Amino acid sequence: MTAQQLFNQIQKKQSFLCIGLDVDLNKIPQHLLQEEDPIFSFNKAIIDATHHLAVAYKPNTAFYEAYGLKGWQALEKTIAYINKNHPEIFTIADAKRGDIGNTSRMYAKAFLEDLEFDSVTVAPYMGKDSVEPFLEFENKFAIMLALTSNVGAFDFQVKKVEDMELYKQVLETSKTWQHADRLMYVVGATKAEYLTEIRKLVPDSFLLVPGVGAQGGSLQEVCKYGMNSKVGLLINSSRGVIYASNNEDFAEKAQQEAQKLQAEMAEILSK
Amino acid sequence: MTAQQLFNQIQKKQSFLCIGLDVDLNKIPQHLLQEEDPIFSFNKAIIDATHHLAVAYKPNTAFYEAYGLKGWQALEKTIAYINKNHPEIFTIADAKRGDIGNTSRMYAKAFLEDLEFDSVTVAPYMGKDSVEPFLEFENKFAIMLALTSNVGAFDFQVKKVEDMELYKQVLETSKTWQHADRLMYVVGATKAEYLTEIRKLVPDSFLLVPGVGAQGGSLQEVCKYGMNSKVGLLINSSRGVIYASNNEDFAEKAQQEAQKLQAEMAEILSK
Repeated sequence: MTAQQLFNQIQKKQSFLCIGLDVDLNKIPQHLLQEEDPIFSFNKAIIDATHHLAVAYKPNTAFYEAYGLKGWQALEKTIAYINKNHPEIFTIADAKRGDIGNTSRMYAKAFLEDLEFDSVTVAPYMGKDSVEPFLEFENKFAIMLALTSNVGAFDFQVKKVEDMELYKQVLETSKTWQHADRLMYVVGATKAEYLTEIRKLVPDSFLLVPGVGAQGGSLQEVCKYGMNSKVGLLINSSRGVIYASNNEDFAEKAQQEAQKLQAEMAEILSK
Repeated sequence: MTAQQLFNQIQKKQSFLCIGLDVDLNKIPQHLLQEEDPIFSFNKAIIDATHHLAVAYKPNTAFYEAYGLKGWQALEKTIAYINKNHPEIFTIADAKRGDIGNTSRMYAKAFLEDLEFDSVTVAPYMGKDSVEPFLEFENKFAIMLALTSNVGAFDFQVKKVEDMELYKQVLETSKTWQHADRLMYVVGATKAEYLTEIRKLVPDSFLLVPGVGAQGGSLQEVCKYGMNSKVGLLINSSRGVIYASNNEDFAEKAQQEAQKLQAEMAEILSK
């Protein structure tokens, strides 16, 4: 998918919502545990109920690897289901990978080629040659951690590096990498006040913004400081949507929560 | 496994060799492709041939995820095989994970609890709450990226952060985290000259050192600057050992390469 196609979807659906598919078997409705593949059954129900309200889905790989083979299989089925039934959806493998070049290449192959995700999240610590292998795929994206939503973000990311905070160095340096137009960035909603500065460095890039809802970030604030002329934002909500209920009405309740977010987004877009 | 037990193994085997099990189906002997599980067959042969010469094995998860379900299954079989037949071996899941707290906890469960690795490599960018979940397991370790062996290490890791290079900030800060005694660190062999400074900050920690061999690092240099009274080093070789030959004699040739490294280590230890 191209960034323009993603923007077109945002306009069409009046939504820039990304739904995080972070399936924890302890949190899903217990009646699903009787199913052959409870993780996939849960995802399928959530996707069926929310696909018209969201432009992206983001399974975090940790939640699948935690269930070993069965988890990996559920991830494969989930991405295949989305790609087959909703090819207009932008898909994100939230994997936060990064390794030496020949190893990053294996991860890129796994997520972008074999599983056919549109994008994968990557960590910047190992620098250029750890990220560039993810940028070799046409119409695919690497979404790099810049300023994350968690408390630990203050440990290193906001520290001054040669008179510029580390996350700014990461943004600035990454613009020099090959195929930098295939980069998006993770910026936590809990750091909305930083978005003005971030937009000075990467005015046109899409930002994947986790942390609205459960982590306390504000959609209004994020849009105020982070939106550009082509929206340029994907707002992620995981727990707030998918665990809205853990009863048999879970998909319906997830839809209601997604609907609320979409309505709020439509209102912002109308201004 | 405790750090003392690891040291005991190093003394017993006169080796601090870690062998990286980075299986690429394009590089293994082609007759193995007839087997039911070529990846596991390759690993088993390498392990059988080298377990008396190495104290650690390190599968890099990228190489397994690249083969999807079959890859994940081969990883499960490999770690189970090592744990059953060679429980004295220190095992490292080279996964370079790191995410917000509840997500890192899922990764920690996957690698340290379910797969029963002794350790997992982690990335520091997201800070304290992204790493601490990996430190909650008794007699298990998180091995954090400090100064990596690749060119990209110069992008951020050696940049001055508040008058101290980022990798030093990472080392210094991590010492304040809960259960910091369960941390080890990745320091590339290609950065041997930095080891004097690193040892000032983490004198007692084990360092996992990739980059000897294919990447050009020197074992002698690493030992000269990085060894402490309990050795404190695990020297990794992946391609140099496991791809010594891609004919039917591959295990024998891998053994010979491991033997050379072990002999060099024994000589260093005898001094």
